[in-house]
Amino acid sequence: MNYFELEKKSNKSNARAGKLKLKHGTTLTPVFMPVGTTGTIKACTWQQIKDIGFNLVLGNTYHLYLRPGSEIINHFNGLHNFINWDRNILTDSGGFQVFSLSDFRKITDDGVIFSSIVDGSKHFFSPETVIDFQLTLGSDIMMPLDECTPIPIEYSIAQKAMNRTLIWLKRAKKRWEESNKDKDHLLFGIVQGNRFEDLRKYSAQMTSELDLPGYSIGGLSVGEDKDTMFSMIEIVNSILPEEKPRYLMGVGKPEDLLEGVARGIDMFDCIFPTRAGRNGSFFTKNGMKSIKNLSYKFSEEPLDKDCDCYACKNFTKSYIRHLFRAKEITAMTLISIHNLAFLKKLMDNIRSSILNDNFEEFKNDFLSNYRQSKEEIF
Amino acid sequence: MNYFELEKKSNKSNARAGKLKLKHGTTLTPVFMPVGTTGTIKACTWQQIKDIGFNLVLGNTYHLYLRPGSEIINHFNGLHNFINWDRNILTDSGGFQVFSLSDFRKITDDGVIFSSIVDGSKHFFSPETVIDFQLTLGSDIMMPLDECTPIPIEYSIAQKAMNRTLIWLKRAKKRWEESNKDKDHLLFGIVQGNRFEDLRKYSAQMTSELDLPGYSIGGLSVGEDKDTMFSMIEIVNSILPEEKPRYLMGVGKPEDLLEGVARGIDMFDCIFPTRAGRNGSFFTKNGMKSIKNLSYKFSEEPLDKDCDCYACKNFTKSYIRHLFRAKEITAMTLISIHNLAFLKKLMDNIRSSILNDNFEEFKNDFLSNYRQSKEEIF
Repeated sequence: MNYFELEKKSNKSNARAGKLKLKHGTTLTPVFMPVGTTGTIKACTWQQIKDIGFNLVLGNTYHLYLRPGSEIINHFNGLHNFINWDRNILTDSGGFQVFSLSDFRKITDDGVIFSSIVDGSKHFFSPETVIDFQLTLGSDIMMPLDECTPIPIEYSIAQKAMNRTLIWLKRAKKRWEESNKDKDHLLFGIVQGNRFEDLRKYSAQMTSELDLPGYSIGGLSVGEDKDTMFSMIEIVNSILPEEKPRYLMGVGKPEDLLEGVARGIDMFDCIFPTRAGRNGSFFTKNGMKSIKNLSYKFSEEPLDKDCDCYACKNFTKSYIRHLFRAKEITAMTLISIHNLAFLKKLMDNIRSSILNDNFEEFKNDFLSNYRQSKEEIF
Repeated sequence: MNYFELEKKSNKSNARAGKLKLKHGTTLTPVFMPVGTTGTIKACTWQQIKDIGFNLVLGNTYHLYLRPGSEIINHFNGLHNFINWDRNILTDSGGFQVFSLSDFRKITDDGVIFSSIVDGSKHFFSPETVIDFQLTLGSDIMMPLDECTPIPIEYSIAQKAMNRTLIWLKRAKKRWEESNKDKDHLLFGIVQGNRFEDLRKYSAQMTSELDLPGYSIGGLSVGEDKDTMFSMIEIVNSILPEEKPRYLMGVGKPEDLLEGVARGIDMFDCIFPTRAGRNGSFFTKNGMKSIKNLSYKFSEEPLDKDCDCYACKNFTKSYIRHLFRAKEITAMTLISIHNLAFLKKLMDNIRSSILNDNFEEFKNDFLSNYRQSKEEIF
């Protein structure tokens, strides 16, 4: 069965438009997925996420495994039912969080023992248990357990982690094929290899050979410079099969979405828009701005004049600035809604431009405006 | 002009049903008003408040005066426009907050000097400036500056504060008559007198004689026992004119709403439903419950089976408990929505029962269920 339909390829770049046909509906690509770590998009309700128009969101296996845990998820026959979200869910493998959040971890060929960020208790993830838990979640798209390494790191360590990720992927695939005969819960492979070209090439080649429904690029956007990130994406995407979807994990700034799409990426996720929203930073076509800015004291304008989200249709910058200064939760909600709606619209516009053969023009126009901003946010 | 239409009086108690005809629409009474201290109901959007069905909310003069302040409110031609709420707003006078929140205050016959809870700066409220600021806000119903005393306190202090409140009310009325010729921003009088029957009687009598659009009962629900509160309400309401609306300030627990209505109160406000919601406590017909309760771990039921709010129509106690444990803001939003919807429905049912001549039966039924609860919340 073909889960991905490639509708259009740009002649001038590697940008692609497609359709992901998933169990809970078709998702148009390129797509940005909001992150609902523990079973909600932070500071938002599911109604607000539906109103923006998202139909594919991300859940974090690490967090959901620790809390609420498989007993509760099982009781509710899966995550969709538990959180009452009838659209698509992609879950990560928990690998990245094991390496970035847990105080303690011990990795062996078998899997990884780690301490819980919730209560310090010890847990074990293996390629098999991570597939099992994601099948319990009922994820529409699942990720295999991988070993993430920071950038920069020594070549030999990156190589070892990349190889272990490949071995683990084979075990994950085996478990997936045995447990999910219908293959209605898709398994992607994750390409690793740190910042090393030959490791990325090898990983992309070996991962592709496993003939999975899609492929992720992991271990990027972890602090390396942008040139390194983009060149790794180019190397990997030159090897990944064209007819399968490609997911760049953890990337979600507007400029990176455009550069990723130009290099053939179809899917993105990032906590950035909601975290920035809770900190008072919002997207505009001229770059990110901070709602704390004194110049908005009397502003009668919405966060973004071109946006038709609930926050922009109804409220001024002056009002939202006031709420943020008064430490009102409502300010976090309104800015989070706007930031997500901004990325949704950006991805819709990117897709239209690809279908209309003018993506590169759209990208250049957007970036020339977006980069005008001199305002420092963080 | 008649701002209040008394539709029905119970034969068996002092319960009343009526209509408050305000500048931004008619509000049916008895009514509970959610508190939007700084210009939003905490953790909610205005859309969510509209969806519940409220058309009269409260804003706090003390908070709005300090932040955003009159310059911004003026720029937007009033609070309705600034916060984009096109329904009714009642504002308090700020008096209660001056006495309960400010680190420093000095009261004279002229008014009160107090320190800001925001930045410690010094400010001055007089009966006149408080009317001026509420006219700047464009409040549909305004309160006059009053002097609140804690319970218990000495008779002589309570008497002095009650008398000063009366003198201030006369000044407030004069300013209101001069500044608001159309009288489309209604001014209520506030009855004080602490826990002393003769002071309450005197205050009610003298306040009534000023022939204002409505009357508030202040200085109750500040820690005194319930019998004291109810007997003070009875004394005051036996004197206040029947044809004017009566507002019991700061009261919002279901049992108190019922007892207040039975004693002839038409309007209530309280931060309790939203504060409790942010703390994980929710209303049910069997009393308040805590979402932290282990017994809800696998609960497939909504917070309240009889409630049709967004939270109850869509989510289980198990899910909301999980979100609360994970410290998700969304949990606060969902429980706040439910608590407000619970009180809205309670007031609607109270009103229907008055119109149908069975309020006392409804009240007894509700309280016999509500008081069954043995669960400790706070």
